Amino acid sequence: MKLDPESIAEYNQTQLEGHQRKLSYWTQEVAKAEPVIQKLIDFQIAIPSWALGTGGTRFGRFPGGGEPRSLEEKIADVGLLHALNRASGAISLHIPWDIPTDPNAIRQLAAQHGLRFDAVNSNTFQDQLDAQQSYKFGSLQHTDPAVRRQAIEHNIEVIRHGVALGSDALTVWLSDGSCFPGQLNFRKAFDRTLSSLEEIYAALPNDWKLFVEYKAFEPNFYSMTVGDWGSSFLYANKLGPKAYTLVDLGHHLPNANIEQIVAILLHQGKLGGFHFNDSKYGDDDLTAGSIKPYQLFLIFTELVDGLDARGMNHATDLGWMIDASHNVKDPLEDLLQSVEAIQIAYAQALIVDREALEDAREANDPVRAQEILQDAFRTDVRPLVAEARRRAGASLNPLGLYRQLNVRQQLIGERGAKTVTTGL
Amino acid sequence: MKLDPESIAEYNQTQLEGHQRKLSYWTQEVAKAEPVIQKLIDFQIAIPSWALGTGGTRFGRFPGGGEPRSLEEKIADVGLLHALNRASGAISLHIPWDIPTDPNAIRQLAAQHGLRFDAVNSNTFQDQLDAQQSYKFGSLQHTDPAVRRQAIEHNIEVIRHGVALGSDALTVWLSDGSCFPGQLNFRKAFDRTLSSLEEIYAALPNDWKLFVEYKAFEPNFYSMTVGDWGSSFLYANKLGPKAYTLVDLGHHLPNANIEQIVAILLHQGKLGGFHFNDSKYGDDDLTAGSIKPYQLFLIFTELVDGLDARGMNHATDLGWMIDASHNVKDPLEDLLQSVEAIQIAYAQALIVDREALEDAREANDPVRAQEILQDAFRTDVRPLVAEARRRAGASLNPLGLYRQLNVRQQLIGERGAKTVTTGL
Amino acid sequence: MKLDPESIAEYNQTQLEGHQRKLSYWTQEVAKAEPVIQKLIDFQIAIPSWALGTGGTRFGRFPGGGEPRSLEEKIADVGLLHALNRASGAISLHIPWDIPTDPNAIRQLAAQHGLRFDAVNSNTFQDQLDAQQSYKFGSLQHTDPAVRRQAIEHNIEVIRHGVALGSDALTVWLSDGSCFPGQLNFRKAFDRTLSSLEEIYAALPNDWKLFVEYKAFEPNFYSMTVGDWGSSFLYANKLGPKAYTLVDLGHHLPNANIEQIVAILLHQGKLGGFHFNDSKYGDDDLTAGSIKPYQLFLIFTELVDGLDARGMNHATDLGWMIDASHNVKDPLEDLLQSVEAIQIAYAQALIVDREALEDAREANDPVRAQEILQDAFRTDVRPLVAEARRRAGASLNPLGLYRQLNVRQQLIGERGAKTVTTGL
Amino acid sequence: MKLDPESIAEYNQTQLEGHQRKLSYWTQEVAKAEPVIQKLIDFQIAIPSWALGTGGTRFGRFPGGGEPRSLEEKIADVGLLHALNRASGAISLHIPWDIPTDPNAIRQLAAQHGLRFDAVNSNTFQDQLDAQQSYKFGSLQHTDPAVRRQAIEHNIEVIRHGVALGSDALTVWLSDGSCFPGQLNFRKAFDRTLSSLEEIYAALPNDWKLFVEYKAFEPNFYSMTVGDWGSSFLYANKLGPKAYTLVDLGHHLPNANIEQIVAILLHQGKLGGFHFNDSKYGDDDLTAGSIKPYQLFLIFTELVDGLDARGMNHATDLGWMIDASHNVKDPLEDLLQSVEAIQIAYAQALIVDREALEDAREANDPVRAQEILQDAFRTDVRPLVAEARRRAGASLNPLGLYRQLNVRQQLIGERGAKTVTTGL
Repeated sequence: MKLDPESIAEYNQTQLEGHQRKLSYWTQEVAKAEPVIQKLIDFQIAIPSWALGTGGTRFGRFPGGGEPRSLEEKIADVGLLHALNRASGAISLHIPWDIPTDPNAIRQLAAQHGLRFDAVNSNTFQDQLDAQQSYKFGSLQHTDPAVRRQAIEHNIEVIRHGVALGSDALTVWLSDGSCFPGQLNFRKAFDRTLSSLEEIYAALPNDWKLFVEYKAFEPNFYSMTVGDWGSSFLYANKLGPKAYTLVDLGHHLPNANIEQIVAILLHQGKLGGFHFNDSKYGDDDLTAGSIKPYQLFLIFTELVDGLDARGMNHATDLGWMIDASHNVKDPLEDLLQSVEAIQIAYAQALIVDREALEDAREANDPVRAQEILQDAFRTDVRPLVAEARRRAGASLNPLGLYRQLNVRQQLIGERGAKTVTTGL
Repeated sequence: MKLDPESIAEYNQTQLEGHQRKLSYWTQEVAKAEPVIQKLIDFQIAIPSWALGTGGTRFGRFPGGGEPRSLEEKIADVGLLHALNRASGAISLHIPWDIPTDPNAIRQLAAQHGLRFDAVNSNTFQDQLDAQQSYKFGSLQHTDPAVRRQAIEHNIEVIRHGVALGSDALTVWLSDGSCFPGQLNFRKAFDRTLSSLEEIYAALPNDWKLFVEYKAFEPNFYSMTVGDWGSSFLYANKLGPKAYTLVDLGHHLPNANIEQIVAILLHQGKLGGFHFNDSKYGDDDLTAGSIKPYQLFLIFTELVDGLDARGMNHATDLGWMIDASHNVKDPLEDLLQSVEAIQIAYAQALIVDREALEDAREANDPVRAQEILQDAFRTDVRPLVAEARRRAGASLNPLGLYRQLNVRQQLIGERGAKTVTTGL
Repeated sequence: MKLDPESIAEYNQTQLEGHQRKLSYWTQEVAKAEPVIQKLIDFQIAIPSWALGTGGTRFGRFPGGGEPRSLEEKIADVGLLHALNRASGAISLHIPWDIPTDPNAIRQLAAQHGLRFDAVNSNTFQDQLDAQQSYKFGSLQHTDPAVRRQAIEHNIEVIRHGVALGSDALTVWLSDGSCFPGQLNFRKAFDRTLSSLEEIYAALPNDWKLFVEYKAFEPNFYSMTVGDWGSSFLYANKLGPKAYTLVDLGHHLPNANIEQIVAILLHQGKLGGFHFNDSKYGDDDLTAGSIKPYQLFLIFTELVDGLDARGMNHATDLGWMIDASHNVKDPLEDLLQSVEAIQIAYAQALIVDREALEDAREANDPVRAQEILQDAFRTDVRPLVAEARRRAGASLNPLGLYRQLNVRQQLIGERGAKTVTTGL
Repeated sequence: MKLDPESIAEYNQTQLEGHQRKLSYWTQEVAKAEPVIQKLIDFQIAIPSWALGTGGTRFGRFPGGGEPRSLEEKIADVGLLHALNRASGAISLHIPWDIPTDPNAIRQLAAQHGLRFDAVNSNTFQDQLDAQQSYKFGSLQHTDPAVRRQAIEHNIEVIRHGVALGSDALTVWLSDGSCFPGQLNFRKAFDRTLSSLEEIYAALPNDWKLFVEYKAFEPNFYSMTVGDWGSSFLYANKLGPKAYTLVDLGHHLPNANIEQIVAILLHQGKLGGFHFNDSKYGDDDLTAGSIKPYQLFLIFTELVDGLDARGMNHATDLGWMIDASHNVKDPLEDLLQSVEAIQIAYAQALIVDREALEDAREANDPVRAQEILQDAFRTDVRPLVAEARRRAGASLNPLGLYRQLNVRQQLIGERGAKTVTTGL
């Protein structure tokens, strides 16, 4: 299905008065509403193609209906989200789940929805049906050069697909590691992984970036070969200037201070991109901002500060993506909630009184510093986010409109109740 | 395949001299070898039917070959393990994965292998193909009475299957909970779960036990309705004298002192059974003793002490089961390693000088108490475990013989390289 | 020093216009502002006497100046806080740090400040200079009956002091436990602790409550004898109807779902009181709401819901106290921030649309349930909190006024720059 | 007191027969006993001067008696340990707690005990009585250049003291960080810390090393400026070839894979030294090997492997030190237990069949790899450790002799029951 632009305009009309009242209160109180609104309009968060269907755990999966059955339908779904919120203007593909048979047609289709192609993702954590080699014991780290070769070639092929679609980054997430003490020679695993990454790096077009993602545990439960930011940084540094660390919020040990990691990586010029989600225990892949919204705000506080300090463009100089798993929510609703939570955190970070904050810091005044941060966090910035949407042609309330239009029912009607999308 | 008893005798002959030498050193040094050996012979650990195939994670599964294709083949596999180690004399079935069409025949088959049927396990964490109701939002806690009804009836049916097989306990593990703050009314979820359990409890034969298993997280990532020992104890206490708490080593928050939990539950008369495995991060379901062997020993130290204090029978008054997932190891080899690690921990716990330990405790002498525990833990009890096996007719080295006989290759020959067993 | 009421009125006058503007926007949008404001006025949070000085860690302590040198000065400090926010109308004493030589005079002094005496706290985690017995190896759990006797008598003495002051509850926090595996017989430690608590319980006046506090770790680093809510509940249940569990937010293992614990305890009629603080790693004792404000809100959501379900009075039927350690902030400023964060969380919990939330829950609609909760959390309730303060005669901005009046400088002038208060 | 060498010989005589029996069994079974014994003789673990007295927590301290009252008595205590085990031949001083007024005399005294001076430690986490500047808000990271200057000068002074004593390394542990979100500008804190470290590095003698220690949390409870191995590595790398990372086992987030960190750092040529202790929750500073002995073994497995791979000397090319806090044990007994646990782990790591292990790894055989590691771990290597002690002139059973000689009672007789040593 495609959203009728009229329906957005009509819906907004019914919400407009309340919105204006809230907004006018806002603009009365706060001077810098305008630049915040503009930054919100510019800020786009990529949607991964694998997050459009119901997710699951090793214990099972409870699919909903109307899930996309093809790459075209995935693009349609992201197009729908983008039509609703004008903040999801990119899609991140996963190979081999999303191999485009006709890249030009796919590019055109995406363009019709106003979407560009974000980082492409390789997959060496599963065995494909026709695979010669198995990744049971790793891919880029594998003891057998033939397995490494297959994994390297796969990544280079992913780059080729990405080039054809106009993407400009490759995200490498490795599940490589070990499940038991003794299983792995850590040194050799490191060297083999590095050497494999070097071959992939060499195949990277000049204007591309390579994102090295790290993860503390799962699916390997003793060691992960790219297990923390320190390891990822080490690899990225050895690879060269086009290699960066990618931070996924769910990929840390308990209690990690992620905002400090972000600040350090940005300060060292090695932060490349972001996977948003939320979690309480591990890589729970829950809706962004659903568990620790203050942490999300603190991360954005560091991002805004660090990007500004380096004169970087908020919207384009880092890769922004959601990476979540929708086990009990309608995937599209979950994504709408995630995008909104990210926008709220970003807006709150933008209204932090930076000058006062630096003053408080230099004066070693943690009470004042906390007041300044929490003043921004406690402020209800939703009118700004809604206004940014309105100006961009989106719905004042994407989720509300989604439900009012019975989108899921329409999708089930089109695609059936038992469709299963590829992905996790 | 079935193991030729001759092959065990022959193998043991080749190992006997070395074994005798080690054992004689042992019996020279330590007086109480004999009772320990006898207790080891009596101690049997149930094998769950779902642990006979390759496990997986949400990211994938890398099956090996020769996996059992039927309940009969699962029994054959456990029979094989038991023939090798004479310590795996029970099998724990899971319904609906293992519904026996002819219970008498199945019972006979098991008896031929020297196996009895341990606790039966219900499954309300997955939707079966023909199910009327979905467990997407829970089972015994569900807001809809029809879902609860289906889940209750399923549990009662599981009891019926168990009765037919000669089992005498039902293990209820609930994945019920919530993924997001707000999703669940904790009070109502508690009351509904309790009320559902009461109906199941009412259907329990007089000589049966009900094990209420708890788990901190996964597959629900915000709350679990039976989330910790306190909750499980609360349910078990309200249900009555046939209800007990079941402890799975992997179902705790980070850093939990499991041995203390075990001691308290045993002291309160509410410890019912055990699921052995090991883990570093969450419910990693690794080989018992592969990550924290000292913790396993400390748990057995409390078990032995607590069972003795209540005059309970080590071998029969608690349910002992392995619950692991074999993602990268041959499942049968993994189980052999688990059983051996459990036996070692048990043997070490048995040789602790209890009297001296109590003296040290009463004297508030943690240095001496630690010396006493670690003296037992540092002692190499493997000759005792091997001797117990030898006397019971098992292999002195089960894993060694398994490999020498190329069992996995034989199973692949019989069953094929691409079989997939039911289960996780 | 004592705050001149005039100064509050004057200060409020300068803030009034802005406040009215924000408030009128609020009352325009939301119908139920009035009952929320009234509940906020009634809600009082006790201040512990030991939180009025600079806290420290085992690595050191960096005292500020002007700390209270006596019980009288501690009462004056709490009086000051209460004058500023009219929400800190109770003080919680700690014996032996705060033994009142003339209880009547102390009672009168407190009354002059509008303060009542909250739960009294015993101390068996430190050795006093004149003590006959040492708590090095525990107190109520101790192997030596003479140590238990001393600890029991001390608790009974604390009750006597509390009676003299008009308090009506005793909080027992035990550091009892063990630092090393083997050190403790868990069963005996449980029984001895229970037996000791029974003696204390027997000495409790009829209208008193006994709060059994639990803590996962520190200062014992292997086991704590009252280590989790399950243990505390077990003790409280065995003791009788006047015994309750007390929850301190920082006393849990990583990732614990505290709001669920609160809901269960309240549902079982065994939640007695609360210690507010915040933490990232352990018992960090940071300012309430400074690390995880959403968790604080979720806890209040359960509290409000659970109290209402049992027809309990929010303000009086549970004990509310801050328990924090001020290592780098001015203690009084820290407490003002904590109280405000608690009030905000409480107000947000009060405006949750309960009916809609129950609807969403019954409909298994986690998307809607989250929207409802987050709508309340994202709402800026600070105008309501400020209005509650204004009506109660407090400052619209307690921290702002505190700083404007240079309270700390005045206290240093009165008391000196090098004072050290008793406590942690 | 000084130990009479005769007493060791006499004691050993009483133990000799049993020891010989155990050892002969050992040497019969295992070929490589001799080189292991030699390596154990060479391996010395430094004792920190602050670990000779009773430790404590923020909640209190329960001192024992006979604690050293001066640097001379601290050296005597380490000398006593070394006489007992011949494996504690170094002492690590802490400035300003141990400022030697006459370095030559101190050097001579140490030499008489067979001790050398290990890394010297600076202290910028406490304010000294005569300090001009306060470290309340950090030292090397401080916003105020005067504070940084004081901290830099202090470190340079510590180097001077170290040079005078014949030490050749400086350990810098910084408690710098922040307690609250917002308090710190992470970038500036990083740059200031680096710049301060550069000045200290510049003052380092040519043959010295600088150890940059990291810690995840405590005493700062929101962020630590050198918070993980990645940060420490970053600093060490920027500083130059004399700078290394120091690993303290208790300074990690929950569930961290420390052995992998060790392997990576060693592989990158940046591992400098080690602080041994054990923990369950945080920086619990318990006896080495008392909680997770298998982890200790796994770490040594990586150390031995990594050192050998780089052709490094086990005994001298890394700094080995205990860093523990003795809250409930006699400090000297605790240290004897720690040293023994470390020796056992080291000996077990030395007997791992490396060739077979590498074979198993290359064959992706985690079952066999685990068997190989656990075979070494399950072996009782205590006879080898005892033999190494015997040959070096130490007691076959240091703790046994310590107790038999009533050393603590003698020390109390000499020094009194109420002495308090400097330190934590």
